[in-house]
Amino acid sequence: MKIGRQEHRSSGISTSNADTIVVRGKDLCRELIGRVGFTEYVWFLLCGELPQPAQRRVLDATLVAIAEHGLVPSVQAARMTYAAAPEALQGAVAAGLLGCGSVILGAAENAGRLLADEVARASTSDMESAARAVVGEKRAARQPVPGYGHPLHKGEDPRATRLFAVAAEADLPDAHRRAAKQVEALLPELTGKPLVMNVSAAIPAVLLDAGFPVGALRGVPLLARTASLVAHLLEEQAKPIGFVLSHAGSKAVEYDGPVPPGFVRGDT
Amino acid sequence: MKIGRQEHRSSGISTSNADTIVVRGKDLCRELIGRVGFTEYVWFLLCGELPQPAQRRVLDATLVAIAEHGLVPSVQAARMTYAAAPEALQGAVAAGLLGCGSVILGAAENAGRLLADEVARASTSDMESAARAVVGEKRAARQPVPGYGHPLHKGEDPRATRLFAVAAEADLPDAHRRAAKQVEALLPELTGKPLVMNVSAAIPAVLLDAGFPVGALRGVPLLARTASLVAHLLEEQAKPIGFVLSHAGSKAVEYDGPVPPGFVRGDT
Amino acid sequence: MKIGRQEHRSSGISTSNADTIVVRGKDLCRELIGRVGFTEYVWFLLCGELPQPAQRRVLDATLVAIAEHGLVPSVQAARMTYAAAPEALQGAVAAGLLGCGSVILGAAENAGRLLADEVARASTSDMESAARAVVGEKRAARQPVPGYGHPLHKGEDPRATRLFAVAAEADLPDAHRRAAKQVEALLPELTGKPLVMNVSAAIPAVLLDAGFPVGALRGVPLLARTASLVAHLLEEQAKPIGFVLSHAGSKAVEYDGPVPPGFVRGDT
Amino acid sequence: MKIGRQEHRSSGISTSNADTIVVRGKDLCRELIGRVGFTEYVWFLLCGELPQPAQRRVLDATLVAIAEHGLVPSVQAARMTYAAAPEALQGAVAAGLLGCGSVILGAAENAGRLLADEVARASTSDMESAARAVVGEKRAARQPVPGYGHPLHKGEDPRATRLFAVAAEADLPDAHRRAAKQVEALLPELTGKPLVMNVSAAIPAVLLDAGFPVGALRGVPLLARTASLVAHLLEEQAKPIGFVLSHAGSKAVEYDGPVPPGFVRGDT
Repeated sequence: MKIGRQEHRSSGISTSNADTIVVRGKDLCRELIGRVGFTEYVWFLLCGELPQPAQRRVLDATLVAIAEHGLVPSVQAARMTYAAAPEALQGAVAAGLLGCGSVILGAAENAGRLLADEVARASTSDMESAARAVVGEKRAARQPVPGYGHPLHKGEDPRATRLFAVAAEADLPDAHRRAAKQVEALLPELTGKPLVMNVSAAIPAVLLDAGFPVGALRGVPLLARTASLVAHLLEEQAKPIGFVLSHAGSKAVEYDGPVPPGFVRGDT
Repeated sequence: MKIGRQEHRSSGISTSNADTIVVRGKDLCRELIGRVGFTEYVWFLLCGELPQPAQRRVLDATLVAIAEHGLVPSVQAARMTYAAAPEALQGAVAAGLLGCGSVILGAAENAGRLLADEVARASTSDMESAARAVVGEKRAARQPVPGYGHPLHKGEDPRATRLFAVAAEADLPDAHRRAAKQVEALLPELTGKPLVMNVSAAIPAVLLDAGFPVGALRGVPLLARTASLVAHLLEEQAKPIGFVLSHAGSKAVEYDGPVPPGFVRGDT
Repeated sequence: MKIGRQEHRSSGISTSNADTIVVRGKDLCRELIGRVGFTEYVWFLLCGELPQPAQRRVLDATLVAIAEHGLVPSVQAARMTYAAAPEALQGAVAAGLLGCGSVILGAAENAGRLLADEVARASTSDMESAARAVVGEKRAARQPVPGYGHPLHKGEDPRATRLFAVAAEADLPDAHRRAAKQVEALLPELTGKPLVMNVSAAIPAVLLDAGFPVGALRGVPLLARTASLVAHLLEEQAKPIGFVLSHAGSKAVEYDGPVPPGFVRGDT
Repeated sequence: MKIGRQEHRSSGISTSNADTIVVRGKDLCRELIGRVGFTEYVWFLLCGELPQPAQRRVLDATLVAIAEHGLVPSVQAARMTYAAAPEALQGAVAAGLLGCGSVILGAAENAGRLLADEVARASTSDMESAARAVVGEKRAARQPVPGYGHPLHKGEDPRATRLFAVAAEADLPDAHRRAAKQVEALLPELTGKPLVMNVSAAIPAVLLDAGFPVGALRGVPLLARTASLVAHLLEEQAKPIGFVLSHAGSKAVEYDGPVPPGFVRGDT
């Protein structure tokens, strides 16, 4: 079935013959394996050019920042899934990544689109007006401002602070970082809450300042979290807690529906 | 519901308070972000210690080797999924990773278990006898020998060759590389086919020589392919081919079932 | 970590003790297994009451209508995934379901929200004004009108026609069906294209007329397609075509990027 | 890339033209929608023939039996995933289904393969010898006997009892039910534990007696659980508990790794 217009019929990422694998114009085996690190290669796959040292440095920093934060929902989903289906580690990793969404973990993309919009608007006005505009639109649509506020790090998200320091040390331009700071400065006034910038706004701020493509921003938490999920699943092999997590979850929630006559509630 | 014995109730990967995030005993913001690269951090998450330079180097090399190889099935599944559901990039990545299985892409783990078994047996006999034993067991169970043979790179998988060279340059011990070579040398005799070592045997060979945990081997193609999938989905945003791929697939397959009276076959 | 407000701590779907499993107030083993069909049970799980015969009849009809339509993208993604990872049928099904999105297969939910909105507006004006309003908002936001137009069934989607006939035979109220017809009547004028109602608008039209919850509409294609995916994966076990599909897909797409000096293009 | 032998290039499930959709030889709109129920259609998709009433009845019974059992791991994974990524209901359903594995939920397939093997062997010996043989092989491989024992229903799984009663009422042949009972009778002697037959052995016992294909057995819990997951996600929209579950899980597990000097443990 022919779905859609199908105007494109090409891809520019990789081709190969029996002897040579080409990626983005380079010979994978002669020019890349053993010569570039994985972070450089990630940038190269996405952008078609190897990164400058400052670009590689902030991409490394963001991947390290977002990979791991303990038994967060995505990790619990993955460990429960692995306990039930140990024959398929890839399935447990996929289950974890599916929680990289707009509310948590995946908010870097939404925050990045807001920051990019704000910087674009500031070019014809000023950053404060632009920040008021983009935040105002979120408020009008009754949507949260992505990338601000954190359930644990209420006074400051130390990862955000550190990422900004790394970007400053790397001497990157700072338009998106200023945009993120401007939003943070206005949020108490505009929302009535002192929501601090979290890692999901800091990641796009430093990456967009480095020239990273906005459409790939959700890839950063996805890639980082994959590493963390594999580490948790390796631990799960030796010290399984997947069913401990689900047991605790089930005990925290009451049944509030009807029961048949004579039913005696027990430990479910 | 309490499922299983639940003898473990702890995890050793991360903890945090409002100010500090601890990963494997280190302060994430002060000791890791901006100080270690992502590849080092991956090793640290998995093993609890930062890698030696030779260890980091081979992990980088394997991640670069397996990330990208054109429009392979996992990439096509992800691009079709994204074309149908562009609201959820994480879903398209997950769909791609679910194809990291025992037949393709995920074979590194199965190959690694075979090589580890072979090396263990060789400690009490010799490598050739050990190789005959482990290959013989696969043959007896009518299972393929994982990590040998490639549909395109029939004479040599250039990634395998290059990974072995990187490991040699890094001066790593070579027991698992020798094990992999020994299997390759015996396959023509034992299977009647000149199957060459592919990247899925080379990855565990060099990583096990570097001390990488066998239970995390499938994590290497999963992590690497996540990067590649994000690159393909970024391209899909600009030059969509997801429905081109499914259209071509549907045209390559005939319907061979019955039809109702009067039905005229058309372009489905 | 405590995320969000967590104001709810209960669930009303199921509880159990060692002898009895309660679902929505009924004893699963004494009152449901062997006494109600699966379609009735699906309605009961979602709504808390067993369906009237007319409700069951249209739910059956929609599930039958959307389950299967040949080698569509979700089926291809599932069959490729299973070919690569036959150890995990659940992973191949999940890969297929991830393509139940806003563009294809999952559009029933989006269409249903539009029809519900239209019916609500018509209560204070008339259906034509309401239809003009909801279509106008989609046009203003440069979004497609979900549930209209089909790549193959251009003159009429026979499933839509049949679902409307089943709903009429079941003597259901028709507000949402009229809403769907009104949109279809206006589309040539409003979009310049004679887009006909497809199955993804007909499903919510008949189900909302039957009192089905709008928030569960995407569940209908998900449930129906699960059945179809299992049938395709059963066929894949006997007559594998997963790699035929990916081979055809890769041949339909050209590489348009640079190559290293001396690279000779081959069959990739 | 041409992977594998690709000897098959056809599918017998569905074809269509602009007017007619054919499924397994029947006209979908004229012969199936509104004329057969979803359960009959599921059987038809899998087997190519509409079921006899007894076949439909046991398939209905198994789907009703396995769909819902409260806040089991697959449900928790789905609700956490939806709380994090409400933009993609399909992703939350997929995350839940990925826990349909060999340990829980998906064990029906493994149990079915064991029962089919046992019945085949009994044709040349007797059922008790066949049961001893298949259980003995599991024990020798240090694998659990799939389908026996339950964490909550220790004296009897009431779903198993009820499914056997439904199959008897439907007057089906009973070879696989006898096989399942024979295993249950021998388990105390062979394992030292009085493990009772659970729903995952009862499902294949009654379905294989009805002629259901063994390769589709895992599809039964997958299909049934999809319905239940949608019901839970509909409830999650109104009364969210996804983050309650993950909060409870994280509190149930201690951190047992090292911490940096001066780190004060808090509520993580």
